[in-house]
Order: sequence, then structure tokens, then C-alpha cells
Amino acid sequence: MKFARYSDGARVSFGVVEGAFVTPIDGTPFGDWRRAADPVPLADVRLCVPVMPQNFYAVGMNYTEHVLERARRTGGAPEIPSRPEPGYRSPNALIAHGEAIVLPPDTDTVQYEGELVVVIGRRAKHVREDAALDYVLGYTIGNDISERRWQKTDRTFWRCKNADTFKPMGPWIETDVDLPSLRTAVRVNGRTQIEFDTNHMLFGVACFIATITRYITLHPGDVIWMGTEGASKDLHVGDLVEVEIRGIGTLSNPVVAAAPAEAVDG
Amino acid sequence: MKFARYSDGARVSFGVVEGAFVTPIDGTPFGDWRRAADPVPLADVRLCVPVMPQNFYAVGMNYTEHVLERARRTGGAPEIPSRPEPGYRSPNALIAHGEAIVLPPDTDTVQYEGELVVVIGRRAKHVREDAALDYVLGYTIGNDISERRWQKTDRTFWRCKNADTFKPMGPWIETDVDLPSLRTAVRVNGRTQIEFDTNHMLFGVACFIATITRYITLHPGDVIWMGTEGASKDLHVGDLVEVEIRGIGTLSNPVVAAAPAEAVDG
Repeated sequence: MKFARYSDGARVSFGVVEGAFVTPIDGTPFGDWRRAADPVPLADVRLCVPVMPQNFYAVGMNYTEHVLERARRTGGAPEIPSRPEPGYRSPNALIAHGEAIVLPPDTDTVQYEGELVVVIGRRAKHVREDAALDYVLGYTIGNDISERRWQKTDRTFWRCKNADTFKPMGPWIETDVDLPSLRTAVRVNGRTQIEFDTNHMLFGVACFIATITRYITLHPGDVIWMGTEGASKDLHVGDLVEVEIRGIGTLSNPVVAAAPAEAVDG
Repeated sequence: MKFARYSDGARVSFGVVEGAFVTPIDGTPFGDWRRAADPVPLADVRLCVPVMPQNFYAVGMNYTEHVLERARRTGGAPEIPSRPEPGYRSPNALIAHGEAIVLPPDTDTVQYEGELVVVIGRRAKHVREDAALDYVLGYTIGNDISERRWQKTDRTFWRCKNADTFKPMGPWIETDVDLPSLRTAVRVNGRTQIEFDTNHMLFGVACFIATITRYITLHPGDVIWMGTEGASKDLHVGDLVEVEIRGIGTLSNPVVAAAPAEAVDG
């Protein structure tokens, strides 16, 4: 089942997506819900970020080729993580499917990272790995937009990963997912840049949930971005970047320059 | 004016604190509000985290002695930051004034860090430093509980800084604050461990707001923890740790061991 969050112009609701239609629901996917009205065409609504997380986890180094590529890029030795360690992103940066990635005027090297996103469905603490997937509501898609110069020079990821609009997420939450069969593809202007088996992670979804919940309570709506594979290429103003995970959907976002009105003061 | 968030047992509301009483309000401190009922004794209610932030920023190295002390502790050269760079914490770890800091069984060296917390009052983007304080609703107090072994060995701060209960914040939001006159004191079991001028930061509140909003929109309710000064000492089960900022209030939390029911599975 696909849960979307959308605006019909008057209000934001959750709904169930079937084919080219969305049926609004009363309640939320995280509790009781029921169909509340007739389906409306998806083309007539605007998709929103499918959930605003209270806690936003992200895994930095979770695919072998990505770790090796990062080492080549930064000139260091590759550090394959020996254990699962999540990092953080911040909800300010989230944008929905279709919304624009806005490049601040002083960005240099901005790149995509196509990622599987886990959406937590219920409260989880001290969860065993073999039961961990029971706490997942479903999965969506993330694009972990990254400014590589800031990533290299700054002490934290505050702007390289969290500048406004740098976290496209969507288009919806798919609850019926077979993790081993997922395949991620990233396209820029229709041309495939990379394809990889989504689940070929150093540490998988269940392992991360079990690890995190040894110390941290996961809450309904929390998200875990699971990292990306390989090397990324630079994005430029005018590009359209798409992350497709077969079995979930396609997250598509144009890249634009900051408007003059958004120029920095002073 | 002091805004608290509290539970009377039936529901959670915002209220205005005057002396030993709190008056419930309709609305929130971030918009229109009005007194909704008669004052009730503070002693009859339970204070909650004064605001659940959507975005939770924290400054790691913002006082000279703290940077020098960290270098002594880790054996590295002191790195005085040359520019303001925020990090992140996560709302899962927040607890209120009076609630217990729970030590997981495998913690080793857990320490307090008394901090000024900025609470953003309205949307801010591209804000000039000389106007930045206009976007602040008020200030509260944070205790940035830190597990030093994990801080040293882990690649990220996920558990050393963000384990459940590691972020006491409160007791309320004070809107009438004279930053230069603030003084922070940390006490453990009634004994003062450190006292410092709260505003003697490497980079001040206005500087951080101006810097962050060059790239990131600050939203009502977002918080910025401003860092701490000096060296901290270890906390132990049974301790009571208090962070007082004169002009705001006192944040007080007991330290307890994880209950057997909270032992890790497997």
C-alpha cells in the first residue's frame, strides 16, 4: 500500500495512492485510519514530504564502493565502518517530490545521493534484529544532496548536507516492500548515472534498528536514510534529478539557482 | 515573561509562570495567545520540555577553556574554531526539568555540560547579525549530557550525545533576558562545579543566527544550544545535577541507572 501526504490547495491530508488516484483518509498511517472520501486524480493534488520526522537519522558510509570513492576523492585511506553508526540530518532541509533543489550562490560542487529511507511505524526500544522490521511502517526514497567543498572544509555537516532544499524525500511511503529485490537507479536529465542493489548494504535496515534502539527510542514517523552507493556526479542549474527504487517509485526534483530575492543580506 | 509547558495530569498546555503559579494560555508563545483560566500552583503540575523543536542545533566548541580542556583530555592540539559551525542533537533525547537522566548499563564516563538554549520565535532566513535577536522568543537552559568514551571511539555523536534522556532542557522559556549579565553555574549534589559568564562565547547568539540563516531557515520552536565552558566532572547514579542561569532559572535532574526492564535484549 502507498501512503502519500498531499495538499489539495485547501488542506494537507494523508491518502492512499492507487494507480493515478489518491483517496484521502481520516487518521494517519501511524494509527487507525479509514477512507474518508472519493479518490481524486493525483494530477490534481500537490505531493508533500510524506512524513515530517521528529528524529532524522542518516547513515553516511553503508556501501563499499561509496566508501572507496570517498577515499579517492578526499585522498585518504578508505575507512570501511566496522559497526553501524547513524548520523543526523535536519527536517528544515526536506522538500517533496517535484519541488526544486535550490543552489545557494556560493555552492561549488553539489551532488546527488540516491537512498532508501526507512519510515518507523511504532515506538521501538531494545528491539532484537530478528524482530526489527516489524517496527517499520514502510519505505520511501531520499536524495541526500551534498555540497562536497563544504563537506571537506567544515567541521560539521550543517550546510553541506542540511542547507534548505537539500533533502528531497518522497514521493510516498510504500508498505509492501521486498528489501532483497529492490534496485536503485539515479538519472540526471533522463540519463542513468548509477544503478545498484539497494539492499547490498554494509549494515542492513534491521541491524540499524536493533543498534539504534539499544540506546535510543525510535518514534512513529522517525526516518532512517540508509546511505548510497558509488561515486556521484555534479548537479547544475537546469538539471532534473530522479531517484528510482523499483518497487517504491520515483523521486524527481529540478535544480534551480537561488532567486535574487534570496540573496544573502549585507 | 516565563512560558512553561506543563501537564496537569489531563493535558499538556503552555502557561505563563508568575512566582509559584502558572496561568494556562490558549494558543502558544509562538503566536497569538491569551490567559485561559485562573493560575494554578506550580507545585500541582508537572513541567514538560518547554518546546519540542523541529530542528535541534548545538554548538560544540564555543568557549575557550572548554576547547583547551578537550584537547588535554583527548591528547590532541587545541582547535579554536575560526568560524561558527553548528552541529545537531535529536529530540528523542530531551527530558524536562525534574525528570531522570538514565544511564545505560554500558556507560563509562558520563558528564554534564551546562548550556544556554536559544528558542527561535519566528521564521528567519538571511537575517543580519544586528537584527538577529529580534527572531528569538526567549532562552532556556540545557544540560548536554555526554558519554566521553563513546565520544572518543564513535564516528558520530549518535549515542554519546543523543542516548535517551541525555538532553535535559528547561525549566521554562524566559523572554526577558539581558545576555551580557547572564551567569551559568553547574552544581552536583549542591556543590558548585563551575561558574562562568554565559555570554563569553567565541561566537555569540546573534552571530550564530546570522550564520545559520545564510543557508538554513530557522523555524518557530527551533532551538540552538550554545555550548559550555571548562572541564566537566563525572556523574554517578544517585547524583542530582543542576544548571542555573541567573535570570532564567534552574534546571535540575537526578541521575539513575537503567531499570532491569530496560536491559538490552539478547
